[in-house]
Amino acid sequence: MKPARSLIPIGTAALLPQTAQYVRQLEGQLLTHLAQWGYQEIIPPTFEYLDVLSAGLPADILEKSYKFADWTTGRILVLRPDVTAQVARIVAMGMGGVGLPLRFSYRTTVFRYEPDHAGRDREIFQLGVELIGVDTPKMDAEILTLLVESLKEIGLPEFKISVGHVGFYKALLAQSGLSEVGRKQAELAAARKDLPRLEEILRQERLSPKRARILLEMPSQFGGEDVLEWGRKVAGRHSALTQPLNRLTQVYHLLDLTGVKEHVSLDLGEFRGFDYYDGLVFDVFTETLGCELGGGGRYNHLIGRFGRDLPSTGFALDMNHVFSALQPSMRGVSSCMSPLLLVAPDNQFGYAFQLAQYLRKESFQVIHETMSVSRSSLACLAGDRAQALALPLVVILGAPAVASDSVLVVRIRKSSYRQQVKVKRSDLPSFLKSQFL
Amino acid sequence: MKPARSLIPIGTAALLPQTAQYVRQLEGQLLTHLAQWGYQEIIPPTFEYLDVLSAGLPADILEKSYKFADWTTGRILVLRPDVTAQVARIVAMGMGGVGLPLRFSYRTTVFRYEPDHAGRDREIFQLGVELIGVDTPKMDAEILTLLVESLKEIGLPEFKISVGHVGFYKALLAQSGLSEVGRKQAELAAARKDLPRLEEILRQERLSPKRARILLEMPSQFGGEDVLEWGRKVAGRHSALTQPLNRLTQVYHLLDLTGVKEHVSLDLGEFRGFDYYDGLVFDVFTETLGCELGGGGRYNHLIGRFGRDLPSTGFALDMNHVFSALQPSMRGVSSCMSPLLLVAPDNQFGYAFQLAQYLRKESFQVIHETMSVSRSSLACLAGDRAQALALPLVVILGAPAVASDSVLVVRIRKSSYRQQVKVKRSDLPSFLKSQFL
Repeated sequence: MKPARSLIPIGTAALLPQTAQYVRQLEGQLLTHLAQWGYQEIIPPTFEYLDVLSAGLPADILEKSYKFADWTTGRILVLRPDVTAQVARIVAMGMGGVGLPLRFSYRTTVFRYEPDHAGRDREIFQLGVELIGVDTPKMDAEILTLLVESLKEIGLPEFKISVGHVGFYKALLAQSGLSEVGRKQAELAAARKDLPRLEEILRQERLSPKRARILLEMPSQFGGEDVLEWGRKVAGRHSALTQPLNRLTQVYHLLDLTGVKEHVSLDLGEFRGFDYYDGLVFDVFTETLGCELGGGGRYNHLIGRFGRDLPSTGFALDMNHVFSALQPSMRGVSSCMSPLLLVAPDNQFGYAFQLAQYLRKESFQVIHETMSVSRSSLACLAGDRAQALALPLVVILGAPAVASDSVLVVRIRKSSYRQQVKVKRSDLPSFLKSQFL
Repeated sequence: MKPARSLIPIGTAALLPQTAQYVRQLEGQLLTHLAQWGYQEIIPPTFEYLDVLSAGLPADILEKSYKFADWTTGRILVLRPDVTAQVARIVAMGMGGVGLPLRFSYRTTVFRYEPDHAGRDREIFQLGVELIGVDTPKMDAEILTLLVESLKEIGLPEFKISVGHVGFYKALLAQSGLSEVGRKQAELAAARKDLPRLEEILRQERLSPKRARILLEMPSQFGGEDVLEWGRKVAGRHSALTQPLNRLTQVYHLLDLTGVKEHVSLDLGEFRGFDYYDGLVFDVFTETLGCELGGGGRYNHLIGRFGRDLPSTGFALDMNHVFSALQPSMRGVSSCMSPLLLVAPDNQFGYAFQLAQYLRKESFQVIHETMSVSRSSLACLAGDRAQALALPLVVILGAPAVASDSVLVVRIRKSSYRQQVKVKRSDLPSFLKSQFL
C-alpha cells in the first residue's frame, strides 16, 4: 500500500488554543519587560527581495531559505530566515527613528529548511532585540543583563549564558600558522568542542607542539576570572589578543555591577553560527534542555553591508526551546481561566444575553446558550452541555425552585459528580471569582 | 538614468514602533474581547501544501497566491492566502478540541498578489473568528453580535454591517430562466450594484419584463423590515426563496434582542467574494472609509471539502482598514508612554542600574545611561541626550547641588526650554506618574 501523503508540511504546525495561549502569554510578558528597558517592537515583513536581503545573510542560512519568484518584477523573494538582517536593512534605509542607540524588539517566525532528523521546526517562533548605533562595553553589558533579566522574568530555572569574543580565537588562529582551510576547520571543531577532531587538524597542518597546545587548551577555557587569567597569559602583548580580552574583562565587571554574573560563564571557545558577528557573542543554555535557547552578539559591520555603517548588538530567543525548558509544572501555573457556560431557556434569550454581557464586562469569559427544553430538565441538560464542552462551571437561568433574583451555579466535577448552589445575581461576580481561585 | 530597483517588494512594509504598538494594542484588545465570548486563539502555520489547502480556496484566491516548491517532497507550498480554509483543514483533521461548537480566534497575516493600482497590501493583517459545528439562527446572531460588540470595543465610530443571504438571490436567479453564464454575470453585476450592466445582461438573455423587474429591484433592497416584506412578496410560496428569507428574519429578530440591530442593514443583494459561503453573509462599512473593513458569513460545506462535514460561520477584519477607519484623533488617545532617560556619572553605574531596575518594577520604561563627564556639565549633557533621543523626561543622578537622597528631574519642552526640579528618591515613582498624566 502506498503511504498516505502528509497533509501538512514537515516542521510546520498549527498551535492550538492551549499552546497558543501560553506562547502569546510568554511573548506578552517578555515584550512588556523589553519595553521597560526602552526596547520597542517593530514588525518586519514576512518576505523580502533575495538580492537585497542576501547582503546580510550567511551562506548556509541563504541555502536553507525558502525562495520564490515575484510575478510582477521577476525578482526572487525570500521568506525571512533571520530577523537581524531585516532590521539591519530597515535601519540602513534610514527608518526607525533618530537618536542613537536605537532599541528594537520583535516577535515573529523565521523560516528555514532543516534536515528532517534534526527534529527542528521549519517555522521557528523567535523573539529578540537589537541595540543599534553604539559600540561600548556598556552596550554589551546592557544586552547581556537584559537577556538574564528577561529569562528570570518568565521564571526560567537555572540557566547559563556562555559568553565569548570571536576576535580572540580568530586572532589566535591567525597567528597559529594554519592554512586558511585549516583555520576554518579548526574554528568549526572548536565551536563543537570536538577535541579529537581539532587535534587531527593541527597534526595534519604540522603545527608546533607549543602552538598546538594553546589551541587545544582553548575550548576547555570556560568559567570565571580564571579564564581571563589564562587568556592574559596566552595574549602577552599581542594587541590582536589583548583587545578582545580587555573588552570581555570590562563587560564581565559591568555584569558584576548589574548583578547577573552568576548566570554568566566566560567561554573563549564560544562561536555563533552567523558570520556577521565580530565582537562579544553568547549562547543561552539550561541543564534541562540539550539545545541552546537562543543567543546573540555584536555585529558591527552588518548594517554597513546595507549601506549605513552602524555598530550593533542583540539577542534572539527560540521560543519553542524556551517553552520546552520551562518546567512542565511552571507551564501549568499559567493555566487559562476556562470560559463559563451560561444557559437559559429559549424564551429568555435576551435576558440571558444581558447577563452574559454583564459578566464579560466583569472580565469573565462567557459562552451563552439557550435551549428549548422543559424547565424541569434544564439544569440536567445544561450540566450535560458543560460536560460535552469540557467546561467546569455552568450558570443556569430560569431553573425551577430558584428565586427570580437568583441563578443556579453548577460545578462539574470529575466522575460526573455535580455540585450545585443558588446564587443571587448581585453576588454572582464575587461568587464566580471565588470559584476560580 | 535607469530607475533604482526597489529595496522592498511592493505591498509589503515593516511596521515601525509607533504603528506596531498601535496594531498590537488593537489586536490585544480585540483578542481579549473575543476570549470573553469563549473564542480562543489558534496560530496556523504560514504555509501549507497547495494540493491540500486548495480544496478550500476559491479559484481567484488560488490564482493570487504565492507558491513555491518544497525541496524535500517536490510538492508545491502556498503562503496562506486565507485563514478560514486553514482552520477548516485543521478542524477536519480532528484537531481543535471536542464538544461543538468550537470557537476559535486568530490574528495573523495573509498573502495575496494584488494589482499595484489597487493600493492594497500583499501582506494583510487579519483578525477573525470561526464558530464551527452548529447551524442555527442563534449562531448566526452570535457572530454578528460579536462583530458589532468588537467594533464598539475598539471605539470605531458609526459603522454598518450589511447582511444578506446568498441563498435568496441564487434561488431567484435559478428561477429566472437565465443561462448559466448569464447567471454568473448577473451575480457579479448585482454584487457591484451595477444596474446598467445588469439591465444589459437581462436584455441580452431576453428575460420577460416582469422577471427582469424583480432582479433589477433587488440590488436596491437594503434597510430594515421593509426589505424582508419586499422579499416575502417576491418569494410567494417558493421554499427555495422563503427558507433563506425566514432565516434572515429570525436572525434579524435575535439581533434586536442583543441590541445591535441599529448597526445592521439588511441587503438582499449582498454577496461575498468567496465561493464557499452558502448562508448568511455580511460586510462591514464605515462612512469614513471607502472600502470594507471586513466581513464573513456561513460556510456549511467548506470543512466537508477536507473530509469532515461541519457547518460553520465566522468573520475576519482587515486590520489595516480598521486602523484607517479609526479617527486619527482616536488613534492619538492610545499614545504610548515614552521611556524615561536615566543618566548618571560613569562611577555610579551600579547604583544607577539599581534605580533603573526599581523604576522598571514600578512599570516605568527606563533607558539607563552613564556618562564620563564633569559633574557641572552632567545636567546639561543629560538634557542634550534626552533631546537627541526625543525623550521628554530625564532623571539625573549625581548632579551638583542635589542632596544625596534626591535626583534631578528635567522635562524637555519644545523649543529647547527645560524645566528642572529636585525630587526625593522615595517620591520619584509618584512624581513621575504625575508627569505622565
